[in-house]
Amino acid sequence: MSKPTLLYAQSGGVTAVINATASGVIQAARKHKMKVLAARNGILGVLREELFDTSRMTPDQVRALAHTPGGAFGTCRVKLKSVEQDRARYERLIEVMRAHDVRWFLYNGGNDSADTALKLSQLAQTMDYPLTCIGVPKTVDNDLVLTDCCPGFGSAAKYTAVSLAEAALDVAAMAETSTKVFVYETMGRHAGWLAAAAGLAGKSADDAPHLILFPEIPFDEAAFLERVKATVARVGYCVVAVSEGVRRPDGKFLAGSEGSIDAFGHSQLGGVGPLVAGLVKDQLGLKVHWAVPDYLQRSARHLASKTDLAHALAVGKAAVDYARKGMNGTMPIIQRVSDRPYRWKIAPAALADIANHEKTMPADFIRADGYGITARCRRYLAPLISGQAPVPYGPDGLPRHAVPKLPLATKQLPGMTP
Amino acid sequence: MSKPTLLYAQSGGVTAVINATASGVIQAARKHKMKVLAARNGILGVLREELFDTSRMTPDQVRALAHTPGGAFGTCRVKLKSVEQDRARYERLIEVMRAHDVRWFLYNGGNDSADTALKLSQLAQTMDYPLTCIGVPKTVDNDLVLTDCCPGFGSAAKYTAVSLAEAALDVAAMAETSTKVFVYETMGRHAGWLAAAAGLAGKSADDAPHLILFPEIPFDEAAFLERVKATVARVGYCVVAVSEGVRRPDGKFLAGSEGSIDAFGHSQLGGVGPLVAGLVKDQLGLKVHWAVPDYLQRSARHLASKTDLAHALAVGKAAVDYARKGMNGTMPIIQRVSDRPYRWKIAPAALADIANHEKTMPADFIRADGYGITARCRRYLAPLISGQAPVPYGPDGLPRHAVPKLPLATKQLPGMTP
Repeated sequence: MSKPTLLYAQSGGVTAVINATASGVIQAARKHKMKVLAARNGILGVLREELFDTSRMTPDQVRALAHTPGGAFGTCRVKLKSVEQDRARYERLIEVMRAHDVRWFLYNGGNDSADTALKLSQLAQTMDYPLTCIGVPKTVDNDLVLTDCCPGFGSAAKYTAVSLAEAALDVAAMAETSTKVFVYETMGRHAGWLAAAAGLAGKSADDAPHLILFPEIPFDEAAFLERVKATVARVGYCVVAVSEGVRRPDGKFLAGSEGSIDAFGHSQLGGVGPLVAGLVKDQLGLKVHWAVPDYLQRSARHLASKTDLAHALAVGKAAVDYARKGMNGTMPIIQRVSDRPYRWKIAPAALADIANHEKTMPADFIRADGYGITARCRRYLAPLISGQAPVPYGPDGLPRHAVPKLPLATKQLPGMTP
Repeated sequence: MSKPTLLYAQSGGVTAVINATASGVIQAARKHKMKVLAARNGILGVLREELFDTSRMTPDQVRALAHTPGGAFGTCRVKLKSVEQDRARYERLIEVMRAHDVRWFLYNGGNDSADTALKLSQLAQTMDYPLTCIGVPKTVDNDLVLTDCCPGFGSAAKYTAVSLAEAALDVAAMAETSTKVFVYETMGRHAGWLAAAAGLAGKSADDAPHLILFPEIPFDEAAFLERVKATVARVGYCVVAVSEGVRRPDGKFLAGSEGSIDAFGHSQLGGVGPLVAGLVKDQLGLKVHWAVPDYLQRSARHLASKTDLAHALAVGKAAVDYARKGMNGTMPIIQRVSDRPYRWKIAPAALADIANHEKTMPADFIRADGYGITARCRRYLAPLISGQAPVPYGPDGLPRHAVPKLPLATKQLPGMTP
């Protein structure tokens, strides 16, 4: 029989700092002599009994995780249904954990993962298997309830604000004879958190971004174009930040998730950035450029926020602590103690209160005209992008990313198609 | 009469380090007690007699230019024609310079700017006006001849390699149940330098980027898709770097500079990135994501290369030196002394040998199969992204950009419509 084991798994979209959480988990578990297995590709790896043995990692390798973006052990987009509908898979999870003497399961993800961890904790009780399930927060979407913010968001927010500030200087320098309107697309299908973060780039009314398009505000094409025109007339150029989740007044996404089909039947995978840019060009005849950073914004570990990194490490360490204390069905969340100076602490919350809920932006975070952020929003966001978290670079000029190559723990069970 | 003056102007597309060149110019000129005027929006500012007086800048402000992206004094995309065709404008330039006792004119740009500086130097001679014209190199396109590389390129190259390496970890972590193919679009309409720089992210055959599409290699859709398919089968995912300048076998751009028109008559401003992504989705049915960093790649001062920054400062300082020495019609260029360790020096070249020429990628920089870079290319590129050039950040978590607000020198002449 192997020794009592902690199983860690990553779930859903990765962030610049999810591996820092993994690093925090492994460091804390080692202090308490706990063995740590990490599932390959999230819950799929548990179903398949593909579990990396992290005890092979040197302390340096564990620390290096904290400056490596992506998901070091692999992650997946798989949502289990209810225990009734998906009983075979839930029971398989418990079987695999039993076979490896897993006493603590840490699931690092968003709403769906909190839900899975919760159901698993309940099923384990009915199956009389002693398992403590802890959810560990993570998402660039910043949409988990109860926690003040989500690890991963602060770094994506910093990437957004810095990139927009830099590009705006480019546009400003060239606007007279070149691009007049620049459109920057942010992630955030359901809530405008990252679009709001773009707003941190500007301090006064005529600073970029001049206009932000939020998913929370129905898109009014005529009013938007009027504002673009007025901004160009007043400032000389106009920088627009647009959330991928912007919707038409009828509630439909401005740019469908699958894009559109052109006259030749080809997919146009243009996101909302190029779409809004096209409107500006067609309706106003202004020269326009657009950028869609896509995955870059959630993997830019080189530009991570120090605050965010600290959060990511702290929730990992606290999760191990909660696990040891048998705080089944909880999640370590971030509580804000004060804005200025920014102070925060980690506290437990019930997974039942988090699973399947979604935090949207408070209405008073969006300016009355709908195109910018309020002082209150700025006060909330500012500490989250504060401080730098530099990565080590090699002589080749590239960050020293460290993705461990680990052996899988010996399988104890017959295989199963997950 | 004002004292003998150096006039500096920025031209064409900006880079992450063009302001570092400006900083080098002002620092060097101050050492020699030269007065420095900087034209507002490039040559347009000279025509309009809109000349910033940089003597108001504190030494700290001058140094801060070196970590501020964009073009601090403004730049423009204006190409003068031949002296015969554009005589009034050339003569106006000389008039304005005479009015401000400009003895030295430094034009910081690419091929076109070298041409303008050259013509101006020739016209000044025929007009018996004592003017020394110096071209100062700059372009993320890396397409100036004679110089080993162009200031601005190394930082854009570093941005490209780092961003691609980070995003590739994201894709790798999620490929099993999410995105299988990721397409990253680089700038470079005429030459594949930045697409080649993406190649620095990978060290071995199965590292990202798995495929690079160069403007130099006609796009073979069937062969490309076959390779994408094979890469996904072998590696589990496929990362593609595509240059905006990729062409069809008939020589036409894969994505027109103006985009296409959709079934509703709207402009589709999709670049080549979404277009290639669309092919992958339609023809192979694979889940695909794409990123178009656009201006971000040439304004990401936060990720500048130390080598590139050193080049940018050095050409600025050398330009002042050449100006003082009356080396009319020259440009300080970068000469590589050795690859490993990387050593370089600044040397003069004749503008006549640079103007209107374009350096393309050597054929032996592209791998025989057309989808990657050779060891020789890597040896050339590697030193250019080497070393970091950190920027100072404020307590707000943003870089402390410093765009000086300067007064214009008092106009001496009646106005003119440029």
